[in-house]
Amino acid sequence: MLESLFSPKSIAVIGASRSPGKVGHEVVSNLVKSGFEGDIVPINPSADEILGLKCYPDLKSYPGKIDLGVIAIPTRFVRAATESCIAAGAGAVVVITAGFKEVGKEGARLEDELARYCTAHGVRLMGPNSLGLLNTHTKLNASFASRMPKAGNISVLSQSGALVTAILDWFAARQLGMGKMVSIGNKADLNENDFLRVFAEDEKTDVIVGYLESIIDGDEFVRVAEATSSVKPVMILKSGTTQAGTKAASSHTGSLAGADIAYGAAFHRAGVIRAEGFEELFDYATAFAMQPLPRGNRVAIITNAGGPGIMAADAVENSGMQVAILSNSIATALKKKLPDAASVGNPIDVLGDAEPNRYVMAVNAAQEDDGVDAIVVILTPQAMTLPAETARAIAKCLQGKKPVMACFMGGEDVMPGRDELVAHNLPDYPAPERAVAALKAMCGYSAWRNRPPRIVTRFPVNRHKVERIIARHLRMQLNQIGEGKAKEILRAYTFNVPPGGPAVSAEDAIEVAERIGYPVAMKISSPDILHKSDMGGVKLNLPRAGAVRDAYDLMMLRIGQRAPDAHLEGVYVERMCSPGREVIIGMTRDPQFGPMLMFGLGGIFVEVMKDVTFHLAPITHDEAIQMLESTRSFALLKGVRGQAGVDLNAIADGLQRISQLVTDFPQIVEMDINPFIVGPVGTNPVAADARITIK
Amino acid sequence: MLESLFSPKSIAVIGASRSPGKVGHEVVSNLVKSGFEGDIVPINPSADEILGLKCYPDLKSYPGKIDLGVIAIPTRFVRAATESCIAAGAGAVVVITAGFKEVGKEGARLEDELARYCTAHGVRLMGPNSLGLLNTHTKLNASFASRMPKAGNISVLSQSGALVTAILDWFAARQLGMGKMVSIGNKADLNENDFLRVFAEDEKTDVIVGYLESIIDGDEFVRVAEATSSVKPVMILKSGTTQAGTKAASSHTGSLAGADIAYGAAFHRAGVIRAEGFEELFDYATAFAMQPLPRGNRVAIITNAGGPGIMAADAVENSGMQVAILSNSIATALKKKLPDAASVGNPIDVLGDAEPNRYVMAVNAAQEDDGVDAIVVILTPQAMTLPAETARAIAKCLQGKKPVMACFMGGEDVMPGRDELVAHNLPDYPAPERAVAALKAMCGYSAWRNRPPRIVTRFPVNRHKVERIIARHLRMQLNQIGEGKAKEILRAYTFNVPPGGPAVSAEDAIEVAERIGYPVAMKISSPDILHKSDMGGVKLNLPRAGAVRDAYDLMMLRIGQRAPDAHLEGVYVERMCSPGREVIIGMTRDPQFGPMLMFGLGGIFVEVMKDVTFHLAPITHDEAIQMLESTRSFALLKGVRGQAGVDLNAIADGLQRISQLVTDFPQIVEMDINPFIVGPVGTNPVAADARITIK
Repeated sequence: MLESLFSPKSIAVIGASRSPGKVGHEVVSNLVKSGFEGDIVPINPSADEILGLKCYPDLKSYPGKIDLGVIAIPTRFVRAATESCIAAGAGAVVVITAGFKEVGKEGARLEDELARYCTAHGVRLMGPNSLGLLNTHTKLNASFASRMPKAGNISVLSQSGALVTAILDWFAARQLGMGKMVSIGNKADLNENDFLRVFAEDEKTDVIVGYLESIIDGDEFVRVAEATSSVKPVMILKSGTTQAGTKAASSHTGSLAGADIAYGAAFHRAGVIRAEGFEELFDYATAFAMQPLPRGNRVAIITNAGGPGIMAADAVENSGMQVAILSNSIATALKKKLPDAASVGNPIDVLGDAEPNRYVMAVNAAQEDDGVDAIVVILTPQAMTLPAETARAIAKCLQGKKPVMACFMGGEDVMPGRDELVAHNLPDYPAPERAVAALKAMCGYSAWRNRPPRIVTRFPVNRHKVERIIARHLRMQLNQIGEGKAKEILRAYTFNVPPGGPAVSAEDAIEVAERIGYPVAMKISSPDILHKSDMGGVKLNLPRAGAVRDAYDLMMLRIGQRAPDAHLEGVYVERMCSPGREVIIGMTRDPQFGPMLMFGLGGIFVEVMKDVTFHLAPITHDEAIQMLESTRSFALLKGVRGQAGVDLNAIADGLQRISQLVTDFPQIVEMDINPFIVGPVGTNPVAADARITIK
Repeated sequence: MLESLFSPKSIAVIGASRSPGKVGHEVVSNLVKSGFEGDIVPINPSADEILGLKCYPDLKSYPGKIDLGVIAIPTRFVRAATESCIAAGAGAVVVITAGFKEVGKEGARLEDELARYCTAHGVRLMGPNSLGLLNTHTKLNASFASRMPKAGNISVLSQSGALVTAILDWFAARQLGMGKMVSIGNKADLNENDFLRVFAEDEKTDVIVGYLESIIDGDEFVRVAEATSSVKPVMILKSGTTQAGTKAASSHTGSLAGADIAYGAAFHRAGVIRAEGFEELFDYATAFAMQPLPRGNRVAIITNAGGPGIMAADAVENSGMQVAILSNSIATALKKKLPDAASVGNPIDVLGDAEPNRYVMAVNAAQEDDGVDAIVVILTPQAMTLPAETARAIAKCLQGKKPVMACFMGGEDVMPGRDELVAHNLPDYPAPERAVAALKAMCGYSAWRNRPPRIVTRFPVNRHKVERIIARHLRMQLNQIGEGKAKEILRAYTFNVPPGGPAVSAEDAIEVAERIGYPVAMKISSPDILHKSDMGGVKLNLPRAGAVRDAYDLMMLRIGQRAPDAHLEGVYVERMCSPGREVIIGMTRDPQFGPMLMFGLGGIFVEVMKDVTFHLAPITHDEAIQMLESTRSFALLKGVRGQAGVDLNAIADGLQRISQLVTDFPQIVEMDINPFIVGPVGTNPVAADARITIK
């Protein structure tokens, strides 16, 4: 895929320059230096030759066909240059020139036209504002970053061109191997989704690393990233995470969500490994690129120094993984081979004077032991330590079935060892906590790869009824669906809603109450009143007609005083629910990733403790249960101190039904069922109040 | 201080050896190589000369006096060697030999005897199981680690000898300067507290770094560390944090505390900066060693690449610091000097082609701006970038009033720049998040240094009464003080306790109730029943005599069924408290650090959400308020959604009174006041239930 981009036979450089330091010169120079074996065609009206290559005044003068055009001339000439590339047969164009969307409206217009022109001609555009691309496997450096890393299995996409230079330098310093690297710039045409697809299919890429500041199309991203993660690991550093401003929201769900939570939910769903920083990104990439995935989370630690061994054990426990204990028989056999003072416990301490063979015996024991899923090998440079020999000996004894992370601590003394480790595809980290963090990322990804198939349940529902209610509201330009109609919608999606109805007078209210039976609750109906109980707009447990009348009159009096400008639609009278645990389930639609479901315990747990979880819709039963489990207050649902738990499956069902509702109706932009009252196992929860916003 | 250790004029090496690789050889060799200018006296019965130095068969044969003895001979000869060192005038002895406390009981006995022998002779002992020590300022390397770092202002103490080798190697690779380094080994005599004291007074030490696995004396540590932190920063990596097993506890406070929480509380109190990992430890040390403390938390970010700038801004916001915005006048002036496309916003983007002078202009603007407390400078290696020149130019323009952290990202291309940075005392980090984390540590320490004076309030109390109650319980070998007596203790410490009294029959209970007035609560009194309400041992709101009788009889029936073996002391009857917010305040005595006060919201907030904070006693009013503020549920106390808040000062008072009580009575090992019922501002909270354990 994208053959013209990654494996061109001939490349034109429009804006090639004779002056070193100029972008147009660097690109030609990098193409030459990288050993590119195809034709390089520099275009410059005022030069005959650049770096020994024949230069053409324009592309029309070049007699051959080109596959790829690289454009580095002032903004106003880019369109014409692109046309000339396409005329000369280019299948792809890279625009390095900046000054488009990022500088304002006019630039955005030019960029848009450029992209449409390319698309219309079936040509792919990378950029503008791109640094270019590299493909080590075709010896192609079509960028103005001069370093060419050694060939390897990590491919990189970066939204920041500047970062590319740092990444290349980093790869070079660590002797890491790279496959392809693209600087996607303004993403006018080719974007992260395209390159995820390409890298997913690329046989030379085993690990995909990305740096992103934004995403072009959230839905597409989730789809593509999930498909990609299913075949190879994708790790992404998403920056700008805290920049999201607060947005006006009419629901709890809406006010608690944010762009960063949405990205988290999307990455989680798609199996994308999220890195929180630059080092973490490449720490992870190195591990995935060099080692097999672990089958479980039991980690053996081998060390020649007690302190760092304890640090590693701390890090393993803190990460949620387990410090493995060798089985008795293997521990006993190893113990016999090691000196008396050595420990075959946890961690395995091969002692400060350990020579390479002692490490090998310990590593072999850990490899053989079925109770060990992964191995961390720590070495400190002590008097007798032979870092390089130890690295080679360990590499030689590995069977390749369990991941091994090395941590050769120190600086110059261990450097020869670290070089050997990298040469033998053993990832090395300067501190135990970093080795463990990388292992943890592998464990998480391994679990995701082995997740059960996602089966989204479809409940039989009355979709037409909801269609009618929404259509009527939209016709009347009403964006808020009040409690009464919201509950009709929920009933249509087989939620259990208490019997009740609207009323516009005390008599009316009594009539409804008599019909549905006492005791009843009465709630104000007004699109302008969000926190009803704060305004005196909720009365509970009304036992008889007199109480209903009193409640109605008092409510109207209080609301008149407290919210004189609110538009009142009357009240909603309904039968009191039996008590139970109050939870909140809801949805907010993220501008990027669409519907995000929320779950939290009701009241202060949501409002004060912010103890909520989000998940992209559509959701499966397993995922809904995971949402419940990942709240801090989960123990309250399961039951604590002799109190019975609630029906977890019933809450999961509720989340799935909301998922179906908001997937069926994209008009719904926010909704809360709050409280959703849940009882013991086997009971049907009640949607006691609901609020739906449509657009 | 410890002159004989750090500045000896002559050193005997007992166990000096001619064989390279042997510890006794390495120590002599390191002394020679380090350029030590005093006398080196190798002791070995079977050698005449080692490395050109005259060797003596024993110390008696050496005619001179020695200041320091370094011992590296088999365990069983160590005692005699120590004696000979002391006879030869040594003021300090370093025992490198292992095989003492760490191998078992007999070793512990030998070690203890050795320490007592030294103390009796007024000689300080470091070790056994020490790697030795270094002092770059006296060119002293009396260790078997061969690297001697360059002289500097960071002094290091390490409980792990093996880690010392990695630390030395790390310092060497990063060209970091070290002052003194000690490997404290088994800490038979000299321990962390001694060296904190020495480093605090040492004019050549500006920053103290420690690696600890345990602490000898918690109280002493807190005292010494607080005094030390008040003059220079102390940062410690404490490992083994997750190893603490669960301990049996009879209170909520006890069951929620643990060794790691106690260390956290102790470090917090003492102003010790806690590092969570090896890299973090030295990232912090580098920042403190090279840069001044910030006055506030507003951080300016200067970058030649957008992406890393955003990463840094994310890290600043996530850390709780603020991204500074340049003042209008300074921003406008800077904007004029920079190219059009540059941004003087947040971060300041000097663009990819920035030459050194552009960085200087931006740094100067940030230095001048009163709204900036600290500066992070990011550089990526782009085509026009001059890392070394930029580093030098920045170093030259610094006024030294605000801390500057550099982040030169990449590998080989930026290396010349990184070398220049270190040479100019500018800390450099490979990724923005690490630079920001170091800055955050400086901010936190700076705030601690400027904390208000600690004034512990003494409340007028009836101490004798408590003395009598505790003495009586101890005489009767009762460790649990029941609710009635516990409340008498609280009353003596001026807590507000509802009126009430014990009863052993229904008639008794009615009599108490009539005396104190209805409604009353009744609770079972039994040392064997911890969760009274779970057992049917609590009845509330009893309005009249009949209800009291029913409650008594039913309670006895239920307890008889549910806890047939419990020893019952009757019931406790008391007047019902007015409702309010239920919180829990308590104390548990940590084996290391003594009384730790706890605060949390009652019920599920403590039991399920574990939303509690701890603080070492004695506590000040400010610290007690900080405890409240640092719970996640603090908003509930302050008041949310129109609900009035509670009297925060009254809770703080309660914590201070517990603090006074447990400081006055070390016999109290655990206590809970649960619930402590708090009302609106101006009301007096009620200690509704209490439990005290003594020993």
